[in-house]
Amino acid sequence: MTPAENAQLALLLEVAGTPKPGNVDRERDLPDLRFEHFLAGAVGAGAGLRAAASGAPVGEAFERAVAGMSQQEGDNTQFGTLLLVVPLVRAASEGEVTPEGASAVVEATTVADAADFYRAFEHVDVLVDDPPEDGPDLDVRRGADAVPAVEERGLTLSDVMALSADRDGVAREWTGGFARTFDAAGRLAELEGPLSDRAARVFLELLAEEPDTLVATAHDRTTAERVRERAAAALDGEEDTAALADDLVERGVNPGTTADVVAAALFVALERGEVTV
Amino acid sequence: MTPAENAQLALLLEVAGTPKPGNVDRERDLPDLRFEHFLAGAVGAGAGLRAAASGAPVGEAFERAVAGMSQQEGDNTQFGTLLLVVPLVRAASEGEVTPEGASAVVEATTVADAADFYRAFEHVDVLVDDPPEDGPDLDVRRGADAVPAVEERGLTLSDVMALSADRDGVAREWTGGFARTFDAAGRLAELEGPLSDRAARVFLELLAEEPDTLVATAHDRTTAERVRERAAAALDGEEDTAALADDLVERGVNPGTTADVVAAALFVALERGEVTV
Repeated sequence: MTPAENAQLALLLEVAGTPKPGNVDRERDLPDLRFEHFLAGAVGAGAGLRAAASGAPVGEAFERAVAGMSQQEGDNTQFGTLLLVVPLVRAASEGEVTPEGASAVVEATTVADAADFYRAFEHVDVLVDDPPEDGPDLDVRRGADAVPAVEERGLTLSDVMALSADRDGVAREWTGGFARTFDAAGRLAELEGPLSDRAARVFLELLAEEPDTLVATAHDRTTAERVRERAAAALDGEEDTAALADDLVERGVNPGTTADVVAAALFVALERGEVTV
Repeated sequence: MTPAENAQLALLLEVAGTPKPGNVDRERDLPDLRFEHFLAGAVGAGAGLRAAASGAPVGEAFERAVAGMSQQEGDNTQFGTLLLVVPLVRAASEGEVTPEGASAVVEATTVADAADFYRAFEHVDVLVDDPPEDGPDLDVRRGADAVPAVEERGLTLSDVMALSADRDGVAREWTGGFARTFDAAGRLAELEGPLSDRAARVFLELLAEEPDTLVATAHDRTTAERVRERAAAALDGEEDTAALADDLVERGVNPGTTADVVAAALFVALERGEVTV
């Protein structure tokens, strides 16, 4: 498969993995965000992913992928996932996908990429934390309205990511060589069985390892830490994973950032040929 | 969404619908054919579907879609579905998708389309019935080896379909103006709720209406008729649909042709804007 196809498949395998505590999976819908919205999101993202593989600038490809993803009624399905996957697809299109290659893509991003990143927020409601205190004009929720401020400050997309790396797990991957993504890809390759089952297992492992930043944003740090502890208990067999999944879904606690990393890891492992379907 | 995207989404929504007695669905895998194989099949078919939408000959687009679909380890996932969907995508690309438009695409097929259809069998093992008694050289299982016979007889793809329309539900759609497909699309639009749930319901209705020809080929007519009766009983509430689904999966009775028609109907309904996700 091509890098764009592996990326699309990664999005689909991620959502198919079950049980994946707190998130939509093959067996669980949220009230207004259903499995089929993720299917449509993955289909719609295709053109943007192909653009990334063909050498389009990262920001442009990302904005296009998000626009395509948003052609369904569940609103945001894979915004964070695409933010991780698009630079990886771009890296793959330039050679084997490696932490170094991915970091090189990140470092090469421009102010125009940052502007397109902001424009992507026009397509979909994304839950994000407040902007840094010294940069209210850089609030991503302003969408295209923030572009003049981005341009005036001369911020590249890499710079923008660095602004929120302390509280957003996706941004942290951008600034940290996609460390968790590549580690998780290695785990996917080590495990056995159907790939979507491995993805669910790796999701749980990542969730047990670090508090999910989307949960921290949507709720608070205590909730995110509590979810981490319960995931660790599920890994140890002290809590039933399916019951944890049902409980978190019921309470509206959705560890979306962890899912984003799993999807990106699926892409890396597929692209490197370390896993197959 | 574009026609090619709607087609890809139709493939995904079809397999996501549950319970869908006898087939892989969101909640059921077969031993060697899993949900994730269908996800990969839909992703891989994308390039062929885009070719169909861009005006490539039907046979060429179909062969390309099947080649792409086959890049997974579950073998045949959506061969019959693509055989229905590709001419519909082509019809959609030439205007609104209608029975007349679809029939015009069928009637315009050539000997070269037939040759590419035979070549498509090289990519994947497809369960088919024996060839007509007067045409053993036309056995599709011969793949590309049968192309000289097809060319010598001057058979178009439409002609080839007519040869098996009496015992293959997909071929019957080709020769009969896609009647069940368009009827089923209408039903999808009438029903309410998530689209993959509607797809599962329409699957059951179609299964209760006519014996599935893949079941008749894989087993026998009596089995296909018995499945039809049990589907009718499930519709009437006399049999539990989920239990029927589990039982058929366990016995390896897979009504694949009915699933093909549902997928094609999903494409039609999506493309006409009669349903949304």
